[in-house]
Amino acid sequence: MSVKSSKNGPCGTGGCGGQGTPDPQDGNIDNALSKISNKLIVMSGKGGVGKSSFSTNLAVALAGKGFSTGLLDVDLHGPSIAGMLGIKGLLDINENQQVIPKMVGDHLKVVSMQSLMTDPDQAVIWRGPAKTGVIRQFIGEVCWGDLDFLVVDSPPGTGDEPLSVAQTITGAKALIITTPQDVALADVRKSINFCRTVNLELLGLVENMGPFACPCCGETIELFKSRGGRITAETMGVTYLGTLPFDPQVVKTCDAGTPIAAGDHRGPFVAALDNVVQAIVGSL
Amino acid sequence: MSVKSSKNGPCGTGGCGGQGTPDPQDGNIDNALSKISNKLIVMSGKGGVGKSSFSTNLAVALAGKGFSTGLLDVDLHGPSIAGMLGIKGLLDINENQQVIPKMVGDHLKVVSMQSLMTDPDQAVIWRGPAKTGVIRQFIGEVCWGDLDFLVVDSPPGTGDEPLSVAQTITGAKALIITTPQDVALADVRKSINFCRTVNLELLGLVENMGPFACPCCGETIELFKSRGGRITAETMGVTYLGTLPFDPQVVKTCDAGTPIAAGDHRGPFVAALDNVVQAIVGSL
Repeated sequence: MSVKSSKNGPCGTGGCGGQGTPDPQDGNIDNALSKISNKLIVMSGKGGVGKSSFSTNLAVALAGKGFSTGLLDVDLHGPSIAGMLGIKGLLDINENQQVIPKMVGDHLKVVSMQSLMTDPDQAVIWRGPAKTGVIRQFIGEVCWGDLDFLVVDSPPGTGDEPLSVAQTITGAKALIITTPQDVALADVRKSINFCRTVNLELLGLVENMGPFACPCCGETIELFKSRGGRITAETMGVTYLGTLPFDPQVVKTCDAGTPIAAGDHRGPFVAALDNVVQAIVGSL
Repeated sequence: MSVKSSKNGPCGTGGCGGQGTPDPQDGNIDNALSKISNKLIVMSGKGGVGKSSFSTNLAVALAGKGFSTGLLDVDLHGPSIAGMLGIKGLLDINENQQVIPKMVGDHLKVVSMQSLMTDPDQAVIWRGPAKTGVIRQFIGEVCWGDLDFLVVDSPPGTGDEPLSVAQTITGAKALIITTPQDVALADVRKSINFCRTVNLELLGLVENMGPFACPCCGETIELFKSRGGRITAETMGVTYLGTLPFDPQVVKTCDAGTPIAAGDHRGPFVAALDNVVQAIVGSL
């Protein structure tokens, strides 16, 4: 494992400049990426499987272990991560005209499209090429500095944004999130093939919204069926990283801006998340 | 209400030709749309709120009432509707080189990207302009014929596909589907503003994955919180069309290719769906 960053120096002191290269933005992107030890792209074939809440809880958990962590929300049409972390206000710019991420605690830096929009309810109606430009800016023109991990919350599907993310963030590794039901798994197989087509290394698959225990009687209920993610991973030759149970507290804590991994919550979800995080860190 | 189609003649007998217009595809699209009384675009700001299963059950319910209904899946990256209806095999072409929709029962015609792909697990890695072309083909080069309703399952968000759909299907009206939790509602407000920006008439909002009754003890559980959709509709001045309860049978029946609205199912979900369908038909 090699998860610690290389400490090349802070932003604004020559560390994030990219001067002297033929294409300034290419140089800025290469420079930014060179200081990030591990780039994790969180993907899902289908929306609504809990990708953003998983990305947020993963980044919070990594930061909680003392890793210097970045969290980038590139879901341009439905950015939700700033809200899940209770981040308000617009992002600032430093003297080198770089975006300064929002700090959450001591170890987590966050950049979300939400934090660039003056009206959070405004729809972003952009076609593909404009979106590619924004994604490149999110890497090359943000003062990320030295990071052990950059967690990138990619929009669902296999379209412009995931393609641009895969092409921009060289050396990244993908995590695929799914729910257990068949209709999600069909899209997961597409995501796995997408990674293989664009030569994006696939770290493994996480099954979300698994078994649910009724808070009244304790009965275990399969809201979205069961074991489909694990079976798909095995069938497709992909590492299975674990199953997270369904817990309405995950929904409520994200809505409240205080993700479940950030507080003193205990219980089956947090325990399962910790196992998944350890599996991810152990595989690097 | 004016929901019955105009019966301009079947495809292949001069009804779907579009000859004599400067741009053949524009003419084909206009011709196809002129024979469809009501075009409903089902949208969601966020993925995974049950948009495709709602679109499928809505189309099945309309066909079950005797309306001539089309169902078009334009979610190019995650098409799921063919699977939800148990449709297998590729689409055929008629002598006018038009795609022939798959028939489900007597009154439902279905076209899905899935039915055009020889390998259903292959990822569609297309950039925006290519996607726009496919969406135009799905209207102008499909032998839809006379329809009372065309239900269009649009991909989530406010990107290329919904924009192309809104621009291609003139005279369409939008239905927005959401779950009750805040993180979904932020995206719903974006979808409402998207409709207003592109002058797409908004028929109303449906709240999905509402209250869940534990099958063991009967306790009502709010999996994704409650009433958020209704409150958002009221706040934003949008018609609230009803709430559908969460029911694992909706997941299982869609996975099995026999949507819940198609069988002899009874219960709270089917009753609530019927109320929503009546509200939609009554508003036209």
